[in-house]
Amino acid sequence: MNTFGQLLRVTTFGESHGPAIGCVIDGCPPGLDIAAEEFRHDLDRRATGKTRHTSARHEADDVEILSGVYEGRTTGTPIALLIRNTDARSKDYSKITAQFRPGHADYTYWQKYGIRDPRGGGRSSARETTIRVAAAVIAKKWLALHFGVRVRGYLSQLGEITPQDFDARRVDWDVVEANPFFWPAGEQVPVLESYMDALRKSGDSVGARVNVVADGVPPGWGEPIYGKLDAELAAALMSINAVKGVEIGDGFAAVSQRGTEHRDEMSPSGFLSNHAGGVLGGISTGQQVTASLVFKPTSSLRLPGNTVDVDGNATEIITTGRHDPCVGIRATPIAEAMVALVLMDQALRHRAQCGDVGSVAPLVPGEAHD
Amino acid sequence: MNTFGQLLRVTTFGESHGPAIGCVIDGCPPGLDIAAEEFRHDLDRRATGKTRHTSARHEADDVEILSGVYEGRTTGTPIALLIRNTDARSKDYSKITAQFRPGHADYTYWQKYGIRDPRGGGRSSARETTIRVAAAVIAKKWLALHFGVRVRGYLSQLGEITPQDFDARRVDWDVVEANPFFWPAGEQVPVLESYMDALRKSGDSVGARVNVVADGVPPGWGEPIYGKLDAELAAALMSINAVKGVEIGDGFAAVSQRGTEHRDEMSPSGFLSNHAGGVLGGISTGQQVTASLVFKPTSSLRLPGNTVDVDGNATEIITTGRHDPCVGIRATPIAEAMVALVLMDQALRHRAQCGDVGSVAPLVPGEAHD
Amino acid sequence: MNTFGQLLRVTTFGESHGPAIGCVIDGCPPGLDIAAEEFRHDLDRRATGKTRHTSARHEADDVEILSGVYEGRTTGTPIALLIRNTDARSKDYSKITAQFRPGHADYTYWQKYGIRDPRGGGRSSARETTIRVAAAVIAKKWLALHFGVRVRGYLSQLGEITPQDFDARRVDWDVVEANPFFWPAGEQVPVLESYMDALRKSGDSVGARVNVVADGVPPGWGEPIYGKLDAELAAALMSINAVKGVEIGDGFAAVSQRGTEHRDEMSPSGFLSNHAGGVLGGISTGQQVTASLVFKPTSSLRLPGNTVDVDGNATEIITTGRHDPCVGIRATPIAEAMVALVLMDQALRHRAQCGDVGSVAPLVPGEAHD
Amino acid sequence: MNTFGQLLRVTTFGESHGPAIGCVIDGCPPGLDIAAEEFRHDLDRRATGKTRHTSARHEADDVEILSGVYEGRTTGTPIALLIRNTDARSKDYSKITAQFRPGHADYTYWQKYGIRDPRGGGRSSARETTIRVAAAVIAKKWLALHFGVRVRGYLSQLGEITPQDFDARRVDWDVVEANPFFWPAGEQVPVLESYMDALRKSGDSVGARVNVVADGVPPGWGEPIYGKLDAELAAALMSINAVKGVEIGDGFAAVSQRGTEHRDEMSPSGFLSNHAGGVLGGISTGQQVTASLVFKPTSSLRLPGNTVDVDGNATEIITTGRHDPCVGIRATPIAEAMVALVLMDQALRHRAQCGDVGSVAPLVPGEAHD
Repeated sequence: MNTFGQLLRVTTFGESHGPAIGCVIDGCPPGLDIAAEEFRHDLDRRATGKTRHTSARHEADDVEILSGVYEGRTTGTPIALLIRNTDARSKDYSKITAQFRPGHADYTYWQKYGIRDPRGGGRSSARETTIRVAAAVIAKKWLALHFGVRVRGYLSQLGEITPQDFDARRVDWDVVEANPFFWPAGEQVPVLESYMDALRKSGDSVGARVNVVADGVPPGWGEPIYGKLDAELAAALMSINAVKGVEIGDGFAAVSQRGTEHRDEMSPSGFLSNHAGGVLGGISTGQQVTASLVFKPTSSLRLPGNTVDVDGNATEIITTGRHDPCVGIRATPIAEAMVALVLMDQALRHRAQCGDVGSVAPLVPGEAHD
Repeated sequence: MNTFGQLLRVTTFGESHGPAIGCVIDGCPPGLDIAAEEFRHDLDRRATGKTRHTSARHEADDVEILSGVYEGRTTGTPIALLIRNTDARSKDYSKITAQFRPGHADYTYWQKYGIRDPRGGGRSSARETTIRVAAAVIAKKWLALHFGVRVRGYLSQLGEITPQDFDARRVDWDVVEANPFFWPAGEQVPVLESYMDALRKSGDSVGARVNVVADGVPPGWGEPIYGKLDAELAAALMSINAVKGVEIGDGFAAVSQRGTEHRDEMSPSGFLSNHAGGVLGGISTGQQVTASLVFKPTSSLRLPGNTVDVDGNATEIITTGRHDPCVGIRATPIAEAMVALVLMDQALRHRAQCGDVGSVAPLVPGEAHD
Repeated sequence: MNTFGQLLRVTTFGESHGPAIGCVIDGCPPGLDIAAEEFRHDLDRRATGKTRHTSARHEADDVEILSGVYEGRTTGTPIALLIRNTDARSKDYSKITAQFRPGHADYTYWQKYGIRDPRGGGRSSARETTIRVAAAVIAKKWLALHFGVRVRGYLSQLGEITPQDFDARRVDWDVVEANPFFWPAGEQVPVLESYMDALRKSGDSVGARVNVVADGVPPGWGEPIYGKLDAELAAALMSINAVKGVEIGDGFAAVSQRGTEHRDEMSPSGFLSNHAGGVLGGISTGQQVTASLVFKPTSSLRLPGNTVDVDGNATEIITTGRHDPCVGIRATPIAEAMVALVLMDQALRHRAQCGDVGSVAPLVPGEAHD
Repeated sequence: MNTFGQLLRVTTFGESHGPAIGCVIDGCPPGLDIAAEEFRHDLDRRATGKTRHTSARHEADDVEILSGVYEGRTTGTPIALLIRNTDARSKDYSKITAQFRPGHADYTYWQKYGIRDPRGGGRSSARETTIRVAAAVIAKKWLALHFGVRVRGYLSQLGEITPQDFDARRVDWDVVEANPFFWPAGEQVPVLESYMDALRKSGDSVGARVNVVADGVPPGWGEPIYGKLDAELAAALMSINAVKGVEIGDGFAAVSQRGTEHRDEMSPSGFLSNHAGGVLGGISTGQQVTASLVFKPTSSLRLPGNTVDVDGNATEIITTGRHDPCVGIRATPIAEAMVALVLMDQALRHRAQCGDVGSVAPLVPGEAHD
């Protein structure tokens, strides 16, 4: 199951310290302009090694388009993307081959397969998410071109820190993109930097929360009952390394809400609120689609931890190598990528079943709740 | 997309007030004993009309096995289950055909398909979850028989109320099953009853949280990268009507945890904690698998709300009929069902790829953290 | 794997002598008019018990629509169809429970599952094809309505007998429908009747060949590389009970053809021939799609045959009960059904990827080769 | 739909004259030894440029393993294979960009996608089959290792020529492998060479028939109803470029057979014949699985043919470049590859549903019919 999606199908491959990572994108509509340079922007947003707050590993992340594009346009045949790994230092991990790092997939891969590639976490490394971001460049472009959909995210919590003086309904995206944390409250960036410096110094790590919003999604996308838009978003986001929870709209806050508060009333000029996060009955409402997800703190720590070795003996482990003290910091583009892939897949599925005939124009505007 | 699962595939059909609901269960191993009476227990746990705290609709929910079972045993061919709807009162809904109930799927189905069955919410009604519970009876039985796996759930929050003097690691299942709320703290039941009585009287509704735990899951279940056990649990639980968020293990609490706290250390006598919820890298660890989900407050209220009609005109709506003031109350069996279906599907997928050869015995006990 | 299709998904269930057979049709576009009576015509064409040349089993084959249709129109939700078995005589088969009928699936089901439903062949009975024909009524209607596509078939060989004075490019469909053999050369019908009478008297059975043609298929349907139109037609037709071979276009005759003969040249007024059977590179050309398939002779014979029993002992078997001396005779509607289901599925898949934008009008007429 | 298989999933990509072709093999069991050199043998068997009877294109076909293998063993993660195209001469095709070659997919790709890669046929070229052969090397090895299954094929007809003094039940595989035609009657090879020389000189092409047999398949593989072993073989073989027909067992010869002849009787020492081709009810019987397929004559000819250009005008076309006068000659390894991939996929699916418990030992030997 290294394939994601029903009609827009992305199959990824590659290990952290193997020769390459890559993907095959199948089902992309023909005629879309795409050039190798277009992958650069989002891959840079996701890349490590750019600030002292993320892993020091530096990969060029040059994308080679192997197929499916002719004279700069997609042809409808599978698009293969390849990224060579260039800064893989397998020696960093040689010591831990016989031990299981707590909080990592070392033990579970070993139990499942009876064999594992220990170099840099092998397949379970977040390195794999690079290629998701690349694949989603195509989805983002197609969604923007055909529907004006924009998928964007920001860091909404770092450890105990939450954005100050911030209204989630009015994100200033220039602020988000202007700092390495994707933080929506610009004045707090120095606070975050100090926080991360102290954390890195301590040798420990911390969790984070990322919010993703999709603007411009028309009503009607999503397939009941088991292909609901929110269910597929949940799976897509939970499939990202280190994610432990996903919310749509108000999420867990809904537990203590009253129905009169939560139900989004409607008027001819639009919905009066968006507690649902733009999805009802698994189908988009035409409002902004909102999701939130949590990343656990990095498990790779230079602080010693108890574990067992492959013979079942007790041992202590220290993880050296290059790691992020907070994986959530550069996770925003990955979360956006998964949302974009889900949306494009659902758009194609909607077109298959309902065509243009079924696409009734929205009865009410999507966004009029202010 | 009315099919759930890859190898254990459950395809459901039916509308709330149509002639019947049902499902086809494909891929079930042969030779499993199953009788129509065995569906009774879980269907009763999920049923409405048993207490004053749930909808007054009363369905017999008699399951007819149409195929796939011969002389009391599954044959490996598709098992079709049929439940006739007997207490459907379409007249209750006749008034709202031309209006969109806020917080319901009325508007989104209409936008997607250009047509909708308004009787009782049609396909988007929680009535559909009945057949999920029925299908999962088979999954629960197979999991118990072959692996000793038990999937159980309880209500972990009702509006603002949380269980008192309760340790989630030591659930007393007899207590849970002895009250209509699936509440794990027995002494609080009168409080809940009063709370619900007041709520019902007010005409409003409230949200709830349900926890599900699976004991006995061996290490190795789950398929990286896009068929991760936790990702599929997230999709499965989010596909239940009214669910707005899903957590695995510590979930959103991980945002402010430190890595030294969250990473579950290991020892020869087992894991020292279970913050991960029994899943690492998308694969089960052998520990208890834990998930939590939130149900939004019911949107069907007799308190008036603003909406539009099918011509786009402003109108006010009051939803009469029979509704739950808190859908979460009887949702526990549904959440269990989805977890059981995911687990059985993953068990079969694991067997396909890794067989018995790949099934290394667990190196450490799954549960020794106390 | 009791589900057929990618986007138009038909999941069937039921055994020959169980309580019912049925199906769930998922992915059907909304808004299609459909009534229970519309299933009658094709089910009658396929039914046994109408002439002395087919099995004496008589089933009413009344279709109950359980879901997915509201006020006579499809709603986009799954359409469940149910047909109760009424003329199942399990006692006819009681003797053969412990034996394996040669040429039947008795032995293979038993080896695969370790259990089998012996009543009338259980799941492996051609009874299952009834529900395929029912499901395809919807596909045929949708294809005709939206594209003017017509899928029709005829018996092109019965044992050694081939149609006389017959040009496959000019089938007189009135003749085909006017006789119980679906034979395209009306004057030969008495010959066929005598042939079948003699065959039935002999106790033996014979094979047959059926041709199916689809008119009106636009160019562009079919998905390279592994979802080719011809590949899916081959699987669909081979999945019918007793089929042992499938040809597209000239089929096996192409082995001794020259390229100058086989390649269908083109002109502004259309293709000059149709050796390809309307498919090139797995994609429809806009010409008539043609397929041919062979049905083996019925294995259920009252003439004794050697076999083994479930203990591995040698024994002799005589199959009593009601059987067709040539299953191919009433197979034409089944073959049409599978072709129609494939075509509708491919139409939806084409619409998903290529939309209306991708649907270039045919450059040349599909049918001008005469 | 560039993915083949349910559990062993092969996703291929690449165009004839693009930078590379490749595939991702997902679902392969862990622990299988595999080295890059092992792909050599079958790729050489399929390669062009080895004799004067096939296309002059010469590709090194060096396989790079990009992922999924660690220290020479599969890890259970996706195996990506990459073959760079080195002898692509795009200039050969520059003249025909604006024309549609008769009998090719030029016209259909253009109608479907509105764009096509004309270089060497792009995605529709038989170049793609190279990577199927590579992927199947893994399947063949796994099948041999775990079940002793061997999948082998031979050319059973070349134009009008059939093997002399040849018993299909006693193929001498050394003879088959000793000549470039995979011809099973060694003494005829000079006849074939003369035939091909004359054909090449004439500028025309001819069709061919290939037979594939799989020995050692245990009873029980195959999934009724829509995942039948024979149905999937039919799709797999029909998906190969230029294939127009597929037979299982006696195939079309069954049309004039009697049931007493065709049904394969059984005895304690085995089946008494194998007209079924080793499949009954879609499930393997334990006998040799046999299939036959036909390749149409190559459409790329230097003899002029009528066609239209992209503006719909009449024109004449001559296809220069390097082509096979009979594509069937080197198709044997491709046909074997597709059979092997189907078998391994079905083996995994069988293990998933029926496990080791369901695998009853064969009641009778598979092969005792002589």
